[in-house]
Amino acid sequence: MSEKIVTLSIGGGGKQTSSFIKDIILKHFDNNIIDNLGDASYIKTSENTAFTTDSFVIRPEFFNGGNIGKLSICGTVNDLSVSGAKPLYLSFALVVAEGYSLENLEKIVESAANEAKKAGVAIVCGDTKVVERGGIDGIIINTCGVGSIVKKLNNYENIQAGDKVIITSDIARHGMAIMLERGQFGFNGNIESDCACLNHMMSEIYDYNIKFSRDATRGGVAAVLNEIAEKSGKGFIINEEDIPIRQDVAELCDTLGYDPLSVANEGAAVIIVGDDDCQKVLDTLKSTETGKNAKVIGEVVDDNKVILNTISGGRRHIDLPPGELLPRIC
Amino acid sequence: MSEKIVTLSIGGGGKQTSSFIKDIILKHFDNNIIDNLGDASYIKTSENTAFTTDSFVIRPEFFNGGNIGKLSICGTVNDLSVSGAKPLYLSFALVVAEGYSLENLEKIVESAANEAKKAGVAIVCGDTKVVERGGIDGIIINTCGVGSIVKKLNNYENIQAGDKVIITSDIARHGMAIMLERGQFGFNGNIESDCACLNHMMSEIYDYNIKFSRDATRGGVAAVLNEIAEKSGKGFIINEEDIPIRQDVAELCDTLGYDPLSVANEGAAVIIVGDDDCQKVLDTLKSTETGKNAKVIGEVVDDNKVILNTISGGRRHIDLPPGELLPRIC
Repeated sequence: MSEKIVTLSIGGGGKQTSSFIKDIILKHFDNNIIDNLGDASYIKTSENTAFTTDSFVIRPEFFNGGNIGKLSICGTVNDLSVSGAKPLYLSFALVVAEGYSLENLEKIVESAANEAKKAGVAIVCGDTKVVERGGIDGIIINTCGVGSIVKKLNNYENIQAGDKVIITSDIARHGMAIMLERGQFGFNGNIESDCACLNHMMSEIYDYNIKFSRDATRGGVAAVLNEIAEKSGKGFIINEEDIPIRQDVAELCDTLGYDPLSVANEGAAVIIVGDDDCQKVLDTLKSTETGKNAKVIGEVVDDNKVILNTISGGRRHIDLPPGELLPRIC
Repeated sequence: MSEKIVTLSIGGGGKQTSSFIKDIILKHFDNNIIDNLGDASYIKTSENTAFTTDSFVIRPEFFNGGNIGKLSICGTVNDLSVSGAKPLYLSFALVVAEGYSLENLEKIVESAANEAKKAGVAIVCGDTKVVERGGIDGIIINTCGVGSIVKKLNNYENIQAGDKVIITSDIARHGMAIMLERGQFGFNGNIESDCACLNHMMSEIYDYNIKFSRDATRGGVAAVLNEIAEKSGKGFIINEEDIPIRQDVAELCDTLGYDPLSVANEGAAVIIVGDDDCQKVLDTLKSTETGKNAKVIGEVVDDNKVILNTISGGRRHIDLPPGELLPRIC
């Protein structure tokens, strides 16, 4: 039997569009809100809302620890969570090439739906566009998220010298899992992406003296710290020996010539916390599944630089990562 | 001087990403909210909110009457407007291929920003992903919209026999403008897409006895009427002689073998209105720029079919358009 594939007619707005949406999409998104599909969905929000968007272009679409569907949910849930908002509603927009395997597409949709359920968020609106063969390579997903603000964690002015820096997970697993999956380097290994929704973990720490947080995706921890430094006028001293990283991940980064601090994560947040609450936040994070490897990795200083104290006893600047890093990593 | 192009490094999350966002994006989006860029934007909403998503894959990106940037704003503003919500905030997510002209990209961004200003909506969050050459054909934009519900217009149960059907603009211009732009058929002509934001027009009629509305994009008026018929259990009798369509557009549809009722519009809404308020709604629509060609084209009946009374005196079923129609039309 020949494989079922995506056809242009699925995106045409006619009969096949209706069947596709019913059979491949709505089957998995079993929430009530989406039943009465209109051009927009009606949702209940509070006055203070957070809103975010992210497109996902990762190749390959399936990787150790997830796929583009799961990632598209985690990425947007995490953007809301690190901004101090409780994620409530997501949109889900597919762009897929004619000829794409319907079986794989359904796996991706199912995985997104399951991840949304685990995170406790409702996917309330969607869109599907089909482009001709060659119009795109495979599949692209955009998700937007709407959440209710619990505590605004985007304010750089809150950050002051003496605040501590926590990373909530061991780093560089997502980027290296993708590299292994691509198989270009002839390396083997069993590195699973850290791809995970962080909203349940983050909700445990909002009551503490958290100053700022951001998830360390494209550009990794280095990009986050440099952006904070630029915007806040403060700096960081980070201790290499405290950075949580798996031995095999560190070795692969070393072999391939990547600085683990610049490698993308999809389940790791940088948290800036007042010294007074640092231990309580760390203990709380470590009691959660996604935060069990959390570590304090350094502190905020007045000198507007990002400095790494290396294991060998040296000091080096951590700069905003230049150039293209790993393309199509998220 | 060689043309400036998009590079992979723009999407890497590092230095070039920062410069690109500042120089090409934020320059045009001069609202205060986006100044403090975080992983999510903080917005003020009411309890009753509408939320929608749409991806735009149109080829060519520039066409008579607009471009993919303008279209990406109009499409989402209109989805909110026809759902009875006042559009307030938009997201704007770019996926662009390495090698794409930066000049064209900036034109697209500028056009989106101008259209948002005209519509009175704020673009509050964004994302840029760059994929390698060949990873996509050109550029894809996703916009999501958040609006405040004025009157819920998605409820099929409100529709009853005797209600009138209004189309707010002459039809089939968008689809035919794109066909001409593609130039595959060797036809010339000056057909401008109807691409426009309908929020100002729609806000004028919410106080009347509007039962339902939807914009007639992919699949055209035929798709909208058939979807309403399917969901409501009602039917329609439409009079061909009352359908507003430009002579040159009708002739081009005829020559190319398209039913104008199935051709995409980007500035035309189907409005179902109680008979009592029909004339007032029509007069109000006609007093607006985007509604000046509005016409009553038929009425709701109990018989669950969509029937066209043709100019020649016949009757034919209007079915949900089958197949692929025009790919990449929006």
